[in-house]
Amino acid sequence: MADLNPVLTGRQPASADPVDIARALIRCPSVTPEEGGALAYLEPLLRAAGFVVHRVTLTSPDTPDVENLYARFGTKGPNLCFAGHTDVVPPGDAARWRFPPFEGVIHGGLLYGRGAVDMKGGVGAFIAAGLDFAMRHGGPDGEGAQAPGSISFLITGDEEGVAINGTEKLLRWLADRDERIEHCVLGEPSSRAVLGDMVKIGRRGSLSGTLTVHGKQGHVGYPHLAENPIPGLVRLLAGLQADVLDRGNDHFQASNLEVVSVDVANPAFNVIPAEATARFNIRFNDLWTPETLAAEIEQRLRTAAGNEVRWSVAFEARSSDSFLTAPGPFVELVVDAIADSTGQRPELSTTGGTSDARFIKDYCPVIEFGLVGSSMHAVDESTPVDEIQALTRVYAGIIARYFATFGR
Amino acid sequence: MADLNPVLTGRQPASADPVDIARALIRCPSVTPEEGGALAYLEPLLRAAGFVVHRVTLTSPDTPDVENLYARFGTKGPNLCFAGHTDVVPPGDAARWRFPPFEGVIHGGLLYGRGAVDMKGGVGAFIAAGLDFAMRHGGPDGEGAQAPGSISFLITGDEEGVAINGTEKLLRWLADRDERIEHCVLGEPSSRAVLGDMVKIGRRGSLSGTLTVHGKQGHVGYPHLAENPIPGLVRLLAGLQADVLDRGNDHFQASNLEVVSVDVANPAFNVIPAEATARFNIRFNDLWTPETLAAEIEQRLRTAAGNEVRWSVAFEARSSDSFLTAPGPFVELVVDAIADSTGQRPELSTTGGTSDARFIKDYCPVIEFGLVGSSMHAVDESTPVDEIQALTRVYAGIIARYFATFGR
Repeated sequence: MADLNPVLTGRQPASADPVDIARALIRCPSVTPEEGGALAYLEPLLRAAGFVVHRVTLTSPDTPDVENLYARFGTKGPNLCFAGHTDVVPPGDAARWRFPPFEGVIHGGLLYGRGAVDMKGGVGAFIAAGLDFAMRHGGPDGEGAQAPGSISFLITGDEEGVAINGTEKLLRWLADRDERIEHCVLGEPSSRAVLGDMVKIGRRGSLSGTLTVHGKQGHVGYPHLAENPIPGLVRLLAGLQADVLDRGNDHFQASNLEVVSVDVANPAFNVIPAEATARFNIRFNDLWTPETLAAEIEQRLRTAAGNEVRWSVAFEARSSDSFLTAPGPFVELVVDAIADSTGQRPELSTTGGTSDARFIKDYCPVIEFGLVGSSMHAVDESTPVDEIQALTRVYAGIIARYFATFGR
Repeated sequence: MADLNPVLTGRQPASADPVDIARALIRCPSVTPEEGGALAYLEPLLRAAGFVVHRVTLTSPDTPDVENLYARFGTKGPNLCFAGHTDVVPPGDAARWRFPPFEGVIHGGLLYGRGAVDMKGGVGAFIAAGLDFAMRHGGPDGEGAQAPGSISFLITGDEEGVAINGTEKLLRWLADRDERIEHCVLGEPSSRAVLGDMVKIGRRGSLSGTLTVHGKQGHVGYPHLAENPIPGLVRLLAGLQADVLDRGNDHFQASNLEVVSVDVANPAFNVIPAEATARFNIRFNDLWTPETLAAEIEQRLRTAAGNEVRWSVAFEARSSDSFLTAPGPFVELVVDAIADSTGQRPELSTTGGTSDARFIKDYCPVIEFGLVGSSMHAVDESTPVDEIQALTRVYAGIIARYFATFGR
């Protein structure tokens, strides 16, 4: 892909252009779990700037192998890591796109393509900011010995998929090699309406489960000989949702339970089914842990069921805890860098879905800041070229302020 | 199959044995929609006794062709028709049967085989009673000219299936040919614990429908941007079942609504679905028609929904009305014949599922009486040989009393 971006093929660019990097990445069809050429494009670019690059292929039974990349410039701590992913969700019907999803067309000031927002645009921005930092601290020759600390990139190819052979394992791989990361900025699209209006300083946890109500099959003409599980399911679901879980707190909105499916799959009208299930997901704040929440759910079901409904509940193994990177010097310097470049102080938010920050928070404080996310996963995903440039300036500002605060 | 029952191959048997007929029918593997040799076996038997026999193959797009039979002895009215079916449900795993399902083995006083109860045993009984009547009124030579009326058999091969190419169409076929039936006895297994404890003088109607609650798909992390249809479905189902439909009346139990399925089929835990459905069936008494009941359901849904739930309901086209053959001379003579032969007066019931009586009631009064139904559709379906003989005596008694009451 490199020949498409001649400015980046030299040993060291005069100044890395984040939009060129984003375009080059969009041209790699890296739909999860395909590497698609994206990491192969980044590797020489980073090596040329003096980064030590690790390509790490992670494997697990029953899931595809996934390629990941970790690169570091500098030998000393503290190590500020920018995390992200180059994998993307499928484009769907490419014919419905205004421009082909893997060409990186720029039109009317917008860069179009799958991943423009989520998150090849963000990767382009932090790579450009990091290359700039490397260039100003010795570049390929010095390899960062004179730098006030280190800049690293943790880039996975398994964020949009099952996330098994991605960030979680790569962090463990690094820890096993005594590689330390002091702080992390995850470049996911965090802005809501304009760049800089929101950073994520935490995330709610997620707990999923399946409720089964047990009955006895029979013929609708003889309901006294059967036991229909559906009225019991209706009763338990009503009981489960009768009260709020909490009202939130300073940093988190209220925890929320959504029943995402109810299923019997009985094709007949004359048969009372034997079993009915409901599947639910809870996004919860730091007033709960997965364990206290599961206990609360079971208590609510017990109360609603009384002695009349036979039920069981099974929680999914892959739940994630909530986390908060509490306001302090790290959050402050990120907020200040954003305010400097964009003119507004971002809202400190913990809303939305989960992200790979749920893995990173076990190793170091993490904050999420990136582009406006409105077109992510959609047809005609696109982002203003100016916004990628502005985001690069924010990331450069974060780097400068970070080493001014924590550097040696 | 006739060679298995030598007594029946002659031009006219001395006395028809209902167990031999039932065994011969069981040996025909007439799983719906297969004729299996059952009607081919009955045709010459009935012709030999002086019946005029029509073999009627009925067809309909998208369903298999089905063979049916109508036979009549006698030229005058009134015409007492015995109705039934020779098709059977599949035997399932034949290896689980004590005796092969299509051999008609008699062991320990029981006749074993698929259809022994439902309803080749009953067909054997009414055919034998009808052949006896024919024999005593001129048989094959007189063709019933001296008889006090007519006996007919309406036998379908599409009762256990979709019932599209069966009794309903065969009745229309007969009506188109000005064939009149004055009264009908349907030989379905109606007895509960012992032969004669119950006759069915009516049936509840059946109305099925599908309720859909409409929402808006979205991510569980952003529930305010989506509209989960499941809480609305729970609310509507609770509202639908909050009150009884009625408390029944002299002849009918209370109408009953069963929700037989709830379905979303959302495989993801992180997606709020766009739609949720519930499928329901109502067995209703003669306080309702399908139209008044549908209106009541819609009213209950409207009330439960208020302005907060977007919903729609679709009722199945094939609903059936309830019916009652009110106590009177016909019901009385059937009850008396049962009491004469079995020593007990049967309960007049309208319970249970639907039957082909739902079609017959549009043409003439119909009553259902037959064997004890406990083993129907099960592995090792079987009926006492004595019970088939006793049922034949009841049917003969019904014929005698019928013509004593209504004959010319």
